[in-house]
Amino acid sequence: MDFAPSARAADLVERVRRFVDDEILPVEPGYHRELAAVRDAGGDPWQPLPMLAELRAKARSEGLWNLFLPAAHAGEYAARFGTDGDAGLTNTDYAPIAEVTGRSFLAPHVFNCNAPDSGNMEVLLQYGDQAQRDRWLEPLLDGRIRSAFAMTEPGVASSDATNMAATAVLDGDEVVLNGRKWWTTGIGHPDCEVILFMGLTDPDAGKHRRHTMVIVPRDTPGVRVERMLPTMGRYDEPFGHGEVSFTDVRVPSSHILLGPGQAFEIAQGRLGPGRVHHCMRLIGLAESALEAACRRALDRTAFGKPLANLGGNRERIAKARIAIDSARLLVLNAAWKLDTVGAFGALSEISQIKAQVPAVAQDVIDFAMQIHGGAGISDDFPLSAAWTAARAIRLADGPDEVHLDLVGRVELAKYAERR
Amino acid sequence: MDFAPSARAADLVERVRRFVDDEILPVEPGYHRELAAVRDAGGDPWQPLPMLAELRAKARSEGLWNLFLPAAHAGEYAARFGTDGDAGLTNTDYAPIAEVTGRSFLAPHVFNCNAPDSGNMEVLLQYGDQAQRDRWLEPLLDGRIRSAFAMTEPGVASSDATNMAATAVLDGDEVVLNGRKWWTTGIGHPDCEVILFMGLTDPDAGKHRRHTMVIVPRDTPGVRVERMLPTMGRYDEPFGHGEVSFTDVRVPSSHILLGPGQAFEIAQGRLGPGRVHHCMRLIGLAESALEAACRRALDRTAFGKPLANLGGNRERIAKARIAIDSARLLVLNAAWKLDTVGAFGALSEISQIKAQVPAVAQDVIDFAMQIHGGAGISDDFPLSAAWTAARAIRLADGPDEVHLDLVGRVELAKYAERR
Amino acid sequence: MDFAPSARAADLVERVRRFVDDEILPVEPGYHRELAAVRDAGGDPWQPLPMLAELRAKARSEGLWNLFLPAAHAGEYAARFGTDGDAGLTNTDYAPIAEVTGRSFLAPHVFNCNAPDSGNMEVLLQYGDQAQRDRWLEPLLDGRIRSAFAMTEPGVASSDATNMAATAVLDGDEVVLNGRKWWTTGIGHPDCEVILFMGLTDPDAGKHRRHTMVIVPRDTPGVRVERMLPTMGRYDEPFGHGEVSFTDVRVPSSHILLGPGQAFEIAQGRLGPGRVHHCMRLIGLAESALEAACRRALDRTAFGKPLANLGGNRERIAKARIAIDSARLLVLNAAWKLDTVGAFGALSEISQIKAQVPAVAQDVIDFAMQIHGGAGISDDFPLSAAWTAARAIRLADGPDEVHLDLVGRVELAKYAERR
Amino acid sequence: MDFAPSARAADLVERVRRFVDDEILPVEPGYHRELAAVRDAGGDPWQPLPMLAELRAKARSEGLWNLFLPAAHAGEYAARFGTDGDAGLTNTDYAPIAEVTGRSFLAPHVFNCNAPDSGNMEVLLQYGDQAQRDRWLEPLLDGRIRSAFAMTEPGVASSDATNMAATAVLDGDEVVLNGRKWWTTGIGHPDCEVILFMGLTDPDAGKHRRHTMVIVPRDTPGVRVERMLPTMGRYDEPFGHGEVSFTDVRVPSSHILLGPGQAFEIAQGRLGPGRVHHCMRLIGLAESALEAACRRALDRTAFGKPLANLGGNRERIAKARIAIDSARLLVLNAAWKLDTVGAFGALSEISQIKAQVPAVAQDVIDFAMQIHGGAGISDDFPLSAAWTAARAIRLADGPDEVHLDLVGRVELAKYAERR
Repeated sequence: MDFAPSARAADLVERVRRFVDDEILPVEPGYHRELAAVRDAGGDPWQPLPMLAELRAKARSEGLWNLFLPAAHAGEYAARFGTDGDAGLTNTDYAPIAEVTGRSFLAPHVFNCNAPDSGNMEVLLQYGDQAQRDRWLEPLLDGRIRSAFAMTEPGVASSDATNMAATAVLDGDEVVLNGRKWWTTGIGHPDCEVILFMGLTDPDAGKHRRHTMVIVPRDTPGVRVERMLPTMGRYDEPFGHGEVSFTDVRVPSSHILLGPGQAFEIAQGRLGPGRVHHCMRLIGLAESALEAACRRALDRTAFGKPLANLGGNRERIAKARIAIDSARLLVLNAAWKLDTVGAFGALSEISQIKAQVPAVAQDVIDFAMQIHGGAGISDDFPLSAAWTAARAIRLADGPDEVHLDLVGRVELAKYAERR
Repeated sequence: MDFAPSARAADLVERVRRFVDDEILPVEPGYHRELAAVRDAGGDPWQPLPMLAELRAKARSEGLWNLFLPAAHAGEYAARFGTDGDAGLTNTDYAPIAEVTGRSFLAPHVFNCNAPDSGNMEVLLQYGDQAQRDRWLEPLLDGRIRSAFAMTEPGVASSDATNMAATAVLDGDEVVLNGRKWWTTGIGHPDCEVILFMGLTDPDAGKHRRHTMVIVPRDTPGVRVERMLPTMGRYDEPFGHGEVSFTDVRVPSSHILLGPGQAFEIAQGRLGPGRVHHCMRLIGLAESALEAACRRALDRTAFGKPLANLGGNRERIAKARIAIDSARLLVLNAAWKLDTVGAFGALSEISQIKAQVPAVAQDVIDFAMQIHGGAGISDDFPLSAAWTAARAIRLADGPDEVHLDLVGRVELAKYAERR
Repeated sequence: MDFAPSARAADLVERVRRFVDDEILPVEPGYHRELAAVRDAGGDPWQPLPMLAELRAKARSEGLWNLFLPAAHAGEYAARFGTDGDAGLTNTDYAPIAEVTGRSFLAPHVFNCNAPDSGNMEVLLQYGDQAQRDRWLEPLLDGRIRSAFAMTEPGVASSDATNMAATAVLDGDEVVLNGRKWWTTGIGHPDCEVILFMGLTDPDAGKHRRHTMVIVPRDTPGVRVERMLPTMGRYDEPFGHGEVSFTDVRVPSSHILLGPGQAFEIAQGRLGPGRVHHCMRLIGLAESALEAACRRALDRTAFGKPLANLGGNRERIAKARIAIDSARLLVLNAAWKLDTVGAFGALSEISQIKAQVPAVAQDVIDFAMQIHGGAGISDDFPLSAAWTAARAIRLADGPDEVHLDLVGRVELAKYAERR
Repeated sequence: MDFAPSARAADLVERVRRFVDDEILPVEPGYHRELAAVRDAGGDPWQPLPMLAELRAKARSEGLWNLFLPAAHAGEYAARFGTDGDAGLTNTDYAPIAEVTGRSFLAPHVFNCNAPDSGNMEVLLQYGDQAQRDRWLEPLLDGRIRSAFAMTEPGVASSDATNMAATAVLDGDEVVLNGRKWWTTGIGHPDCEVILFMGLTDPDAGKHRRHTMVIVPRDTPGVRVERMLPTMGRYDEPFGHGEVSFTDVRVPSSHILLGPGQAFEIAQGRLGPGRVHHCMRLIGLAESALEAACRRALDRTAFGKPLANLGGNRERIAKARIAIDSARLLVLNAAWKLDTVGAFGALSEISQIKAQVPAVAQDVIDFAMQIHGGAGISDDFPLSAAWTAARAIRLADGPDEVHLDLVGRVELAKYAERR
């Protein structure tokens, strides 16, 4: 048992940390302020500021690009589009990098490792055929285009993904899509050119064989963004989450991924690493919040003492530390399980982190807001945006309750089998 | 012991409930949508829509106006400006009315019972002299003007109110104000014409005798709204919270309330009923959230069952019910203590509700958001705005921690005295 | 709305409090020590010490006897066996008395108000015929005999009471009992002469019409106490909880209460007031624990400060105060509902308190143990016994989960009906 | 990063697990029942039953003996008295073994790895001179004698260890001990022949240089066990916890460990590994409780369903799984820090686990008790004893609050230093 990162991971973590600390964090508050000014002046807040493209170019030039590429599937792409070494990283090695990027709202995008693009790239890498990879994966890895993921629907309880009612009907050598999706993340980005869409193809097939995943060019006729959705009042520009209608959208059947009825198999493969990434970024966010809380606790004085010495504040700091460290270890262990026994073997572990880590992050950030007083819930600190990010992930990719239920079932199955 | 409301309270609660249910709630979502459209179109979201004035006129015509007026101090004003009966209400009688108004974001304003105006009116009623009441109280009761309250400061930990550093210096028959306030609630309203300002007058006096409360006309030279502050990304139009600078602001010393150095005495008197109002409104908000959660739990189906039958959902509904009912009883009991033994006798009880009820409301609303899935954190339901309201009150009027500390001190004092 | 107790209740509370403070608490630690010495010396710890009989006689002589007798059913018995006034008390009036008796482990028995006797007396009062009341109720009210209640069974999940498998078969003018019960409270007392037994009579009847409640003299052939059960290692002498087998136990059918198949109707009526009593006694226990915690926090010094000033201790004291006061109000309100709308109308409220109050008491007492350090979990303070009492009641009379489920169902039914 | 145990650890874990499963657990309930029968019959429950000596002999013959011996200090002793291989184990390697032994109350003693003996042996190993090791360490490693640890005192808040008031005064070539200790663990064992005693030597020295650790033969005149202390009503035979008075106890100054005033240095070194052991054993205990809970949830039926399918039970099982796995990883990481950066470098990590793990175990076991119904709080399952064990460790070796405070201080120091 060894809790030290590998040499390669340690090196990359350090380089990413320096980049985040030296290049991104110093300019990030200004970025958000400038964007707010654009918005207030009636401008388009969905258009990223030029500063972002510059940061992306610099990160790429330092080899800090597409680091999410998985060792298991990266193949040639790691060498061609990641510029560090010739192979992808294991989940275990990438996880602490994801944590560091989570300290900044801009960083995941700067390193071309942001959701949903990284997940979509993984899907294309693992399940796309050569033509699909050539057409969509390469420009995504190259950072020329962005993508969206369309699964959740407004009309049904999407916590049960088999409820999905939008259709993907085979019609000769075409597939015809109809229905309404929402929380289609990434659709707001001006560079978004492609959507991964899940739809019902064969209602009579087994519950997890009914749906098909289809690659939909953003500009296909019948695709319409009805509105962008706020999360706790925020729009998460430039990616955002849209409500999107699909009306008789026709694409060639060559746009189907893996094959009709294979959407759940793909989704399952996609979600394991994605959940590790989400959770590790949230841990980075929680660490930032705790750091801010400690600094505030030392800097502000009330009733003649620094806040750190008042009431239960020091205990709360301690509990936040314990919660964060426990959560990080849980995610790292899940990543290691993914690497060593695969997505199915790590089923419970992946659901454990998804049910636990966002809630931990939410609580730590809530404490950090509280100790900042009114400033904590204003936009003067990134805490309220951080809270919203953590809160949203308690619902995205399956709500807490669905993951707890799975963990409980796996646990009980140990004994049911043996009886 | 009798848990039934008085006949007068029961009648008023019923009339207010009908007004909220029949007149306000049906139009409220449209109100917020229309305001959002104004904002998106580059209009001024701080200008209330005409619908609001109409609702206010109708409420007043039905005698549902200024119901917050306290039996203890209302005097002639209850008969002149409240149109129901000839006397104010006790805290115990008003509390359940406040709960009903809390189910709507518009209702408190419709009934002219909204913060900070109701608190400011109470201050003028109880501590203002005749001239002050004539000039400011009457138009407030009449609904012609609005007001703001300026106490919290950005530069110090305002949880310790004695930290307040803005100054109110006596200079002949004038008082000169300097400093910077924020979270000055109500300053965004276009009808805001007066600010209650707390400032340091005598740094050498006892800790609670140093500060003075001054009535400041909004248009006095030197008063400048630097910016409006978002709460978790929202601005709470049309009242809002401002950062306000005071630069050599001069008003006649007749604008001092009660006398120099009396600000804390006034603040204490103001905050007791105000905390009951805040807490009861939050209970109304939590009830609405629980109702929405129950309806969603019955209407949505996942894994072949209504959400109500899945996992721990029914237990969470039960715990929300218990938490709300416990919280309501705690507030009603505090209100009754205020009425029967006064603000000093109810010191612990008032701090108990302030420390407990916003947190309860926050948790219930968080659950309601969760069971709504993505819809719960969007703006399609008022839940995310409700959550923000509850979260903010965990900081407003003293953070949880300050109130817990007071409750703990009162508790320990029982035994320290006896030793 | 009025939170003050009635004059009669206030007077009785004060007299009971003085009796507990002056007569019982000063001798109680000695009582337990002496009993422990008897046990260690190989004596019989189930035989109450003479001191107890003296306290009971004194309480009775002061009119503090059978105060639990309910106004609704007490009739002549209140005047004959309670010696204070000529009528029983409402639940609302008795509740604060129950709280005061809860501060002592001996007090409920001293005032002849202890479980399960008080509940059994209520059953006999409300559902017994004249002969049953003459034979069993009178000596119980008179304190000459004690009783037990036999419902829970070891072989089934008794949280679902309809699981009860022990039988009560009608055979001519006799009823024949077979089966095994446990947690038969009161069976250990040397004066226990009668058992209320619930058994299955008609498996084909509706779920709540299958079981019959039978009065079983303790010395009927076939009744055998297999063993006494420890609760967290303690036996709760002199009442205790037994595992009792019933083998072809025959009693005349005149021993049936209310009629065959009526056991659930009786149990439901019994449990409402009983739960109020249990909960109020636990609140008294929690108050004692909090008082002990405060005293310890003031008396002990660590790191140069009294414990009260260290870390989160003062906040924990505040939270305990809030939790206790909230819980008390919840119980008082449930008692008032029982009085005003009856057991069926107060169904949710009764389950709310049963699910909430024991858990609150457990947590408060756990904190009190913690702040006492090692002493808190020793027997030098009554805290560890108090914790055990609270813990046990989270299971007795239906576990938390069953009550939460009922509360959730009642809540959801509000909306299901209206759809 | 690698979460797999080393080959040596994996082999030992498997062998210990088989021994516990095959040799100990099948006979353990009978052991406790037989001991209870001895106690009830007026026999001496402090005398271990012969079965225990047989199990110890068998374990030793299989090389499962003194596995706690630390790689860092074991030297020749590992080869001489541990019979597996020639070296001690790292904390990281021993930790999962400790977990397995924690599933049984007898196992730690069977493998000669029980507290306080293992800690005392570590002290003698690391700080004892040759004569001290020859006289005391060897028979302890050999299992011929047992030992006790005397630090906590009844008269002061021992959470602040510098409060210790018992004295160890140098008098020529003797040291004279006076004072009263309690929670002296191990003193009840009939084979206990030696006590490690901490006493105040130089009140004028620095806070952590005042106390001396002295080896006291159990039969030294002046040593008197005043009483054995119950923990939540249980005595933890055969080791137990005693209140012990020391009256003019004289031992040669050669019995001083390390030197006068060095007690805190020794205690600190002793407590790091000891806390890892305690925490890992508690994780084993929590795992057993969760396993029992799952089996019960599948086996018992209420309301027509297995308990596992009712209400929030499955979620509670999931949360227990997450809590246990998080806790285990936290302890393993702390053990690894102990091994790689030493006790001082792992200061926060050791306090984190001590503050977190017992509370986690307590909660998991409480849930397991609850799902077992009345059986869970009886002695028919080892759950109530397990709960008591976890509860006690929240106080032993420093209460939760002291450890949280340290964690908070370490966290804040990161930023205080940098300012």
